Amino acid sequence: MGFRLPAAALRPLRSSVLLKPAAQQTRWLATPTPFPVTQNMTSSRGPTAMVFLNMGGPSTTDEVGDFLSRLFADADLIPLGRLQNYLGPLISKRRTPKIQKQYAAIGGGSPIRKWSELQCAEMCKLLDQISPETAPHKPYVAFRYANPLTEHMYRQLLADGFGNGKGGRAVAFTQYPQYSCSTTGSSLNELWKWRQRLEGKAGPLDDGSDGTIKWSVIDRWPVHPGLVEAFAQNIEAKLQEYPPERRDKVVLLFSAHSLPMTVVNRGDPYPAEVGATVHAVMQRLGHVNPYRLCWQSQVGPQPWLGPQTQMSVEEYIAKDQKDLVLIPIAFTSDHIETLYELDEEVIGESGHKDTVKRVESLNDSPVFIKALADLAKTHLDSGIATSPQMSLRCPGCKSDRCHESKKFFAAQELA
Amino acid sequence: MGFRLPAAALRPLRSSVLLKPAAQQTRWLATPTPFPVTQNMTSSRGPTAMVFLNMGGPSTTDEVGDFLSRLFADADLIPLGRLQNYLGPLISKRRTPKIQKQYAAIGGGSPIRKWSELQCAEMCKLLDQISPETAPHKPYVAFRYANPLTEHMYRQLLADGFGNGKGGRAVAFTQYPQYSCSTTGSSLNELWKWRQRLEGKAGPLDDGSDGTIKWSVIDRWPVHPGLVEAFAQNIEAKLQEYPPERRDKVVLLFSAHSLPMTVVNRGDPYPAEVGATVHAVMQRLGHVNPYRLCWQSQVGPQPWLGPQTQMSVEEYIAKDQKDLVLIPIAFTSDHIETLYELDEEVIGESGHKDTVKRVESLNDSPVFIKALADLAKTHLDSGIATSPQMSLRCPGCKSDRCHESKKFFAAQELA
Repeated sequence: MGFRLPAAALRPLRSSVLLKPAAQQTRWLATPTPFPVTQNMTSSRGPTAMVFLNMGGPSTTDEVGDFLSRLFADADLIPLGRLQNYLGPLISKRRTPKIQKQYAAIGGGSPIRKWSELQCAEMCKLLDQISPETAPHKPYVAFRYANPLTEHMYRQLLADGFGNGKGGRAVAFTQYPQYSCSTTGSSLNELWKWRQRLEGKAGPLDDGSDGTIKWSVIDRWPVHPGLVEAFAQNIEAKLQEYPPERRDKVVLLFSAHSLPMTVVNRGDPYPAEVGATVHAVMQRLGHVNPYRLCWQSQVGPQPWLGPQTQMSVEEYIAKDQKDLVLIPIAFTSDHIETLYELDEEVIGESGHKDTVKRVESLNDSPVFIKALADLAKTHLDSGIATSPQMSLRCPGCKSDRCHESKKFFAAQELA
Repeated sequence: MGFRLPAAALRPLRSSVLLKPAAQQTRWLATPTPFPVTQNMTSSRGPTAMVFLNMGGPSTTDEVGDFLSRLFADADLIPLGRLQNYLGPLISKRRTPKIQKQYAAIGGGSPIRKWSELQCAEMCKLLDQISPETAPHKPYVAFRYANPLTEHMYRQLLADGFGNGKGGRAVAFTQYPQYSCSTTGSSLNELWKWRQRLEGKAGPLDDGSDGTIKWSVIDRWPVHPGLVEAFAQNIEAKLQEYPPERRDKVVLLFSAHSLPMTVVNRGDPYPAEVGATVHAVMQRLGHVNPYRLCWQSQVGPQPWLGPQTQMSVEEYIAKDQKDLVLIPIAFTSDHIETLYELDEEVIGESGHKDTVKRVESLNDSPVFIKALADLAKTHLDSGIATSPQMSLRCPGCKSDRCHESKKFFAAQELA
């Protein structure tokens, strides 16, 4: 199993104090308790591995250096060209002390592991109820730049009895609602890489299948009604903090991680999908409040997609619009970009901490976790390996890795 | 009345041959036949002026020069700074012969006036049926850069008995489904300017109103179900031209007019709303085909939003993806950007005219015209002057014109 949490600690939801900080939790690598995989269990196609993909974050400040060095080595995320192997380590080493301070300021580490493990485990419990034919559902988390790394997750899958000639089914479930080549694309390329390294040579079985893990992918879900509802409820809760006479005039500032214009101009689908999410949330809210979509976390001298979140806040305040609610719309749990960048920098430096606020991240929202289960159930019922959309490369894509990875996932045949 | 077309010529829809080319039609300025406006008609709040806003296009090649000079004088569309009055005429004069040739190639002029007048007249007929309490509905068209210009439309409104102490109601209905400051914003600023010039000094009436025209605005409708349905039906019709075995693998390339990055980074809402339209159409189509959103009509050396439509077509063809369907997604009738840029340049120069196709523009689609009537009916019933969203300026907006224009429309009180 991907990780271990006492079932009691996961209930009730919304009580995050019940969970120990990720760093203190029993590390999953130390507890590879395999469960028996029987692919021919009567009237069941299970077990099914549910693998949450996300970028991850350092659970302790000690992990910041490794985290950054993996991040700046990722050409899907930060394309540095032929100098990647030289520039990546240089930049990451230089940035480590500064980023360590930021993680120290938000409690010593990112909560993304805690939330991801909780969300996945809770979703699996729901799935066991609503999709008994694919039960049991086993939760795994695979991060791109932090523990649990994709490689380790994959080794755990094998240790737990998936693959290795025994087949078995795993669902790669991106935790980015909107697809970008630099996020979901990068995670899938990494998953494909380790699949080729760890399973590439598995021999064929008598029944024609080759006994490797059968993968399918949930690659995007920008306007899923449950996701939209979860965002909307958190926004409504935050708006309640404003006096009724000001409430409808609060400006909603949706904020998503920006992309370099080179990625946008290559044809990355992310900006359009973020736009779709924003519109769906505003429709659910009845278009009562004015709103804008802005983009955060730009870094370096090259052009990124704007308008910038921090600048937008400053400009609205300069226009005497001081009631502002920030909504992280492209990430499903708290992380350094919400807890530090939005809370400490954007809001902290705005001079109006009383009227510039941020909505809660989805974290342990039961509405959100139910949405995840609903998405997974629909996917499992569909028998589809990947969406037609995922198999289409960006018009400007030159990456052989993308080409091969997409080909691999699209070719997965589900029984 | 905004223009004159024999009622019979508008029926049946889909028979565009029944309409004379716009240039040959009786010019509306020559026929200012006023109809009596009675604001206290029994059990009716009508008449209601329905004013379609759009950029317009030259109906003949002779009008190209004037069209371009107005276009390059518009700082909302093409911000040239303090040199606008010098550079604008220079650029427009230099481009005129080239653009004249393009209009000559598509039949001697833009059909946008013909389609706009037809769409508006047909919508008004539907409105008379479904919204008798605001009938009669009188169709007007106000173009930003071509006849009928906003100024002339406004003078016609006054001549027809609206305003001038008699009050009356008019709806400014943008024909851009997605809001951009450079399109709808520019049209509304122009409308506001002429309202101030032609009605600014109208005196107050006894009943407390000042007898000027009461304006309300339909400012955006990117995911209206009727709009989405009209797009989807035209896409499905085009996909039928491919053999069944290739049909589901045709790549849908949604193409919208691009924006300069200075406008995007100022906080223009257009890119996100175009993304919302695309997603809604794909949902309606069941996400069967892979797709991308790309951007066309970039001009000049400054950076514009990408990926570029023509480049995307070339790159997909280079990747051996030759079945491509282009979908103009941000404009509701044919114009130079569909008939010349997409058909002649992008498709014509692709080397694959047999497999790279364009869907029909909405033009006289009955589904679309019904959607317009539905949008208008909902707006008329709402009693709302403008959406909360329209009253919010972009974070980076420095335009006093935008500020004053938005304030004016938001302050319009409907009875």
